[in-house]
Amino acid sequence: MTLERIPTGIPGFDEITHGGLIRDRSYLVTGPSGSGKTIFVGQFLVNGIEMYNEPGIMIATEERPQHIREYFSTFGWELERLEDENMLAIVDATSTKIGLPSDEKYIDIRPFDTRSLIDQIINIQDEIGAKRAVLDSTTSIGFAINDVSKFRIELLKISTTLEILGLTSLLTCEVLSTEGDQISRFGVENFVVEGTIVLYYTKTENVRVRGIEIFKLRGSDHSKKIHPFEITENGIVVHPEEEVY
Amino acid sequence: MTLERIPTGIPGFDEITHGGLIRDRSYLVTGPSGSGKTIFVGQFLVNGIEMYNEPGIMIATEERPQHIREYFSTFGWELERLEDENMLAIVDATSTKIGLPSDEKYIDIRPFDTRSLIDQIINIQDEIGAKRAVLDSTTSIGFAINDVSKFRIELLKISTTLEILGLTSLLTCEVLSTEGDQISRFGVENFVVEGTIVLYYTKTENVRVRGIEIFKLRGSDHSKKIHPFEITENGIVVHPEEEVY
Amino acid sequence: MTLERIPTGIPGFDEITHGGLIRDRSYLVTGPSGSGKTIFVGQFLVNGIEMYNEPGIMIATEERPQHIREYFSTFGWELERLEDENMLAIVDATSTKIGLPSDEKYIDIRPFDTRSLIDQIINIQDEIGAKRAVLDSTTSIGFAINDVSKFRIELLKISTTLEILGLTSLLTCEVLSTEGDQISRFGVENFVVEGTIVLYYTKTENVRVRGIEIFKLRGSDHSKKIHPFEITENGIVVHPEEEVY
Amino acid sequence: MTLERIPTGIPGFDEITHGGLIRDRSYLVTGPSGSGKTIFVGQFLVNGIEMYNEPGIMIATEERPQHIREYFSTFGWELERLEDENMLAIVDATSTKIGLPSDEKYIDIRPFDTRSLIDQIINIQDEIGAKRAVLDSTTSIGFAINDVSKFRIELLKISTTLEILGLTSLLTCEVLSTEGDQISRFGVENFVVEGTIVLYYTKTENVRVRGIEIFKLRGSDHSKKIHPFEITENGIVVHPEEEVY
Amino acid sequence: MTLERIPTGIPGFDEITHGGLIRDRSYLVTGPSGSGKTIFVGQFLVNGIEMYNEPGIMIATEERPQHIREYFSTFGWELERLEDENMLAIVDATSTKIGLPSDEKYIDIRPFDTRSLIDQIINIQDEIGAKRAVLDSTTSIGFAINDVSKFRIELLKISTTLEILGLTSLLTCEVLSTEGDQISRFGVENFVVEGTIVLYYTKTENVRVRGIEIFKLRGSDHSKKIHPFEITENGIVVHPEEEVY
Amino acid sequence: MTLERIPTGIPGFDEITHGGLIRDRSYLVTGPSGSGKTIFVGQFLVNGIEMYNEPGIMIATEERPQHIREYFSTFGWELERLEDENMLAIVDATSTKIGLPSDEKYIDIRPFDTRSLIDQIINIQDEIGAKRAVLDSTTSIGFAINDVSKFRIELLKISTTLEILGLTSLLTCEVLSTEGDQISRFGVENFVVEGTIVLYYTKTENVRVRGIEIFKLRGSDHSKKIHPFEITENGIVVHPEEEVY
Repeated sequence: MTLERIPTGIPGFDEITHGGLIRDRSYLVTGPSGSGKTIFVGQFLVNGIEMYNEPGIMIATEERPQHIREYFSTFGWELERLEDENMLAIVDATSTKIGLPSDEKYIDIRPFDTRSLIDQIINIQDEIGAKRAVLDSTTSIGFAINDVSKFRIELLKISTTLEILGLTSLLTCEVLSTEGDQISRFGVENFVVEGTIVLYYTKTENVRVRGIEIFKLRGSDHSKKIHPFEITENGIVVHPEEEVY
Repeated sequence: MTLERIPTGIPGFDEITHGGLIRDRSYLVTGPSGSGKTIFVGQFLVNGIEMYNEPGIMIATEERPQHIREYFSTFGWELERLEDENMLAIVDATSTKIGLPSDEKYIDIRPFDTRSLIDQIINIQDEIGAKRAVLDSTTSIGFAINDVSKFRIELLKISTTLEILGLTSLLTCEVLSTEGDQISRFGVENFVVEGTIVLYYTKTENVRVRGIEIFKLRGSDHSKKIHPFEITENGIVVHPEEEVY
Repeated sequence: MTLERIPTGIPGFDEITHGGLIRDRSYLVTGPSGSGKTIFVGQFLVNGIEMYNEPGIMIATEERPQHIREYFSTFGWELERLEDENMLAIVDATSTKIGLPSDEKYIDIRPFDTRSLIDQIINIQDEIGAKRAVLDSTTSIGFAINDVSKFRIELLKISTTLEILGLTSLLTCEVLSTEGDQISRFGVENFVVEGTIVLYYTKTENVRVRGIEIFKLRGSDHSKKIHPFEITENGIVVHPEEEVY
Repeated sequence: MTLERIPTGIPGFDEITHGGLIRDRSYLVTGPSGSGKTIFVGQFLVNGIEMYNEPGIMIATEERPQHIREYFSTFGWELERLEDENMLAIVDATSTKIGLPSDEKYIDIRPFDTRSLIDQIINIQDEIGAKRAVLDSTTSIGFAINDVSKFRIELLKISTTLEILGLTSLLTCEVLSTEGDQISRFGVENFVVEGTIVLYYTKTENVRVRGIEIFKLRGSDHSKKIHPFEITENGIVVHPEEEVY
Repeated sequence: MTLERIPTGIPGFDEITHGGLIRDRSYLVTGPSGSGKTIFVGQFLVNGIEMYNEPGIMIATEERPQHIREYFSTFGWELERLEDENMLAIVDATSTKIGLPSDEKYIDIRPFDTRSLIDQIINIQDEIGAKRAVLDSTTSIGFAINDVSKFRIELLKISTTLEILGLTSLLTCEVLSTEGDQISRFGVENFVVEGTIVLYYTKTENVRVRGIEIFKLRGSDHSKKIHPFEITENGIVVHPEEEVY
Repeated sequence: MTLERIPTGIPGFDEITHGGLIRDRSYLVTGPSGSGKTIFVGQFLVNGIEMYNEPGIMIATEERPQHIREYFSTFGWELERLEDENMLAIVDATSTKIGLPSDEKYIDIRPFDTRSLIDQIINIQDEIGAKRAVLDSTTSIGFAINDVSKFRIELLKISTTLEILGLTSLLTCEVLSTEGDQISRFGVENFVVEGTIVLYYTKTENVRVRGIEIFKLRGSDHSKKIHPFEITENGIVVHPEEEVY
């Protein structure tokens, strides 16, 4: 049996996954600070709306939505318009957590509570019928929960809910380093997903080099190599025919 | 005296073990995320049923059974049919732990309790007379127990029970890395088994390479090398005559 | 869309950032002891006043303001005059914390309290209408809070407040080493900023070499290399056309 | 003065110790999982009975005696017969600890208690007048006690008792790695013994290699090299004239 | 502006600092056991008295003053005479801490208390009007306080007091290693000083080599290299024109 | 001034110290298990009695005195005779700690108490007027105290008492490794001594090599190299003219 695939629309990426991600599954996008995780998941969401007519949900646990809108506008992505068209919902799970008021439409109450977040996603799903979701990032949830064993269970609840709601999801994870073999911050994030994408941002001699690897992708064959990618003014471009040296 | 052997039916694997596993013993299948542990143990179970007429039990502590059924169908393994034929029982030890209802026939109550799990295995054994069992994974039990010393004892109870019930068992263990010499997550899993199989998924320069090693196999001689293996559309194929460089 | 840029006026630095920092954002200046962090942020502040007519705020959590004034005078920077002209405000967040009285105009009460610090910044902002701010250093706040999870939230509150008040800010962070990949002391400082500048002070064979890297700079392309810099009698000079070997 | 020696009868081993172990002393046999510790100490015990007419005691803290009997039978060692001849006593310190009933003659009560174990050894000594003892393994006692400082004292009590009872003893210790210099699991086991034997099981390129080293042997000169050994169908064979490369 | 400099009188050292230390500042002298820290700070103090007529204070937290007097006499430094001439005061902060009576003139009460130590320094300052001070070592204070966060604040209080009293001070710090980049024991000592001098005592092949580095020296340019030094019968001699290979 | 020296009588050792140890000081003899620490300190004590007519005290915290007597007899050292001649006193600080009765003349009560140990040493000193003392080992005291900060103070009390009583003392310290730069087990033992002697027992390729280094020796110049040594049937022989490669 072949599982249904969903293209990301990120240039070059669907080639190295041999056809995109598996529909209704959750994936970890892991990498150090500065590696391009937020751009990657944003592009996945925006492409979903603009190229494949699939509404999307963005859960922002680390930055205020207004910040993300401004930042994404530098890539030509007009989130505000997509929100007005009811194709995109951004959950502000940041402002109230730092004691700031929020004008956002969707606000996650404080402090962090899995049940309340899940309820909100269910409500949004009723409204816009999303097909894609993004959670940026799992790491701040990990710090909020502050108990590896409990964090693992809560993440498992979130990813399972997203799958049951019919959402293909990307969850970001900020690691301190990609030097060793560890591909998650707390060592448990990878347990709750069907696949892991690693973004490298490595110092080679005196220069930083960007690379992307499909570390794990259940239900599909995929490239076993690390491919270079660029962050252009239109977002990420992966070079599937090249390798990082 | 020679101990009775049980073939796994995994192409190439029975050759590097010089005849398969010892009957009624428990083994650890250890490796990092993405190394193929779940495929390996699933193939052992499915082969047991289809090639050797040995019923099997799968204890799933990390994924809902429906997920596993869909995933395994990509390798042409039809778990549902095997379950209908009473040759396979899957214990859902995941759903209730994350607060979801479960339609499964065999459900492990929450929170994790060794006694209750063992009772359930005994009951299933009455029903289907299994010869093989799989526990995927010990690592989530380790996180649930959250005490290395207690975890070691509970695992020892489980593996001893499986042996007394006449089951040859594979227990998976997710390690963070295979770079050093550590071959288990909590450093105690290997205490409770008669053998350890290590799955490698190593970055060599810029490419991931898969390898398998019989690290320990009491009661039998075995290959001392790391052999390459592939994950094909029919599951794992080990190349016993080749070595990973 | 292009975000507004703000030049630092530090020779060579605005070139490697391809035009300076993004206005109203917070940046981390990270490096080991002796790497030049305090000089870097001081020069940013003094240049803001003298070259671009932008008033500035310096929050000193580690040294008494008088000390900083004397130290900066060795680079020809006359803080006292700038303070008299109401172009610069220095918050003494050090003296009372070690039980000393302070003659300073702006004094942060003890012990460390985010709310009180934020209130003071708001008041200063009413008085001098600053455009740039410097917090030297986040590390002593980290030690005062002594809880990584809480520290992350408090830093997020501070940096968000600075952004809302229209301040472009530099926050210093003292790391123990730049040998590995870790670019912050407590592993969470980089979460709360839009960019990270790393200052290297590395032993090569038998000599210390200084280097600077734009590690992350959201909303702008930037050099991916480590460039050498010098500390001259007029402050920092970056060599954008050279690389550290 | 020369201390009395006791040959192990393990081919090649008595040569690298220049005559065997010192009588009435305790030794640590340390190595990672799969290195052959249990075979080594079993062979020492069986040889003692069959070659030198010295009765033996085996304290099994990790495996049920029945398991050990089956496993050792693959090397042609018939423990049951030796037990019937009153030349061997096996203490089951495993079964009751995991809540299983035991049919064994000698059972150690639960939970672990040094006093009770020592009393039992004294009783057995009255019955069979053993000359050799084996404790497999100290590591499970370490996990049971769970306090390095207390573990050290309890091990010292056990080894001193064994010496006072006139037993030459081998205590196994499972280490996670032999890569560094650490030769014990909890860093204190070596304190309580007169000698340490290290079993290596090292990955060299792509192959596991076995080696043995006399790390410490008070009261006797000994080889300073690592010698290769094999596990044959008759047990361990050390090659004293060869070295591991 | 140029800050006033104070020569140490240590042969070669004032050359690599380009003129000595900045007056009224505190410096860390860091290095492993055996690297020469105590000799270095003693020589600074004795030279101050004999070459520059600057009285000095030595706070000894690790050794009884009588011990130090005997040890320093091997370099020809007659502390007793300098004390009689009221040019040197030694605070015994060791004896009472280990329960011994002390005949010393200046004794620090037990247990360690920053306030009491500061009061004593103020009193001594009234008596002898010192210009230089030495605290050997901060590390024993760190162990006494046993809380990194509190230790940092207390050290900051001490160094700030020394500066306010017009003392140029050297504080020793014993590190476990100079192999990595860490230049302090508890990772916070360098926060409270204006400069750091590192003493190396490194095993090169089979020989220990001594080296000195001006790691940080605010307000002055300085050598960026590691220079060899010797411990002669007259104390330390730095070789500014040579480098450690 | 030159401090009085005391020869150890260990062949070759007094040469690399350029004349022996400083009288009335304490030294650390540090090294891994098997490196020869107990032999070294025993030889120092026996030589003191037989070659220099200086009575000695041995405090045995890890082994029962009878064990030490037997072990040392293999080097031809007859402790019992020396005890009979009132030239040697052995304090049994082991037996009662593990619950065994002791027939020894000098027994240290349980549990470990610095005050009681010091009182006993004072009493012995009245009886035999010892000039040399040995404490084997500090490491077991460290485990008994189980608090690094307190351990440091207690060791300081012990070594200071030994010095005040006119004893030149060697204190052994068992380290886990000599691979890095750490030369003590708990990182504080070196604080309380005037010198440190390191015994190496290093795996070079496939062979263990023994080496000795005078790491620190206050008040005297000394060799900076690692010299090979052998353990012969008469004890340790250092080769001062050779180096370990």
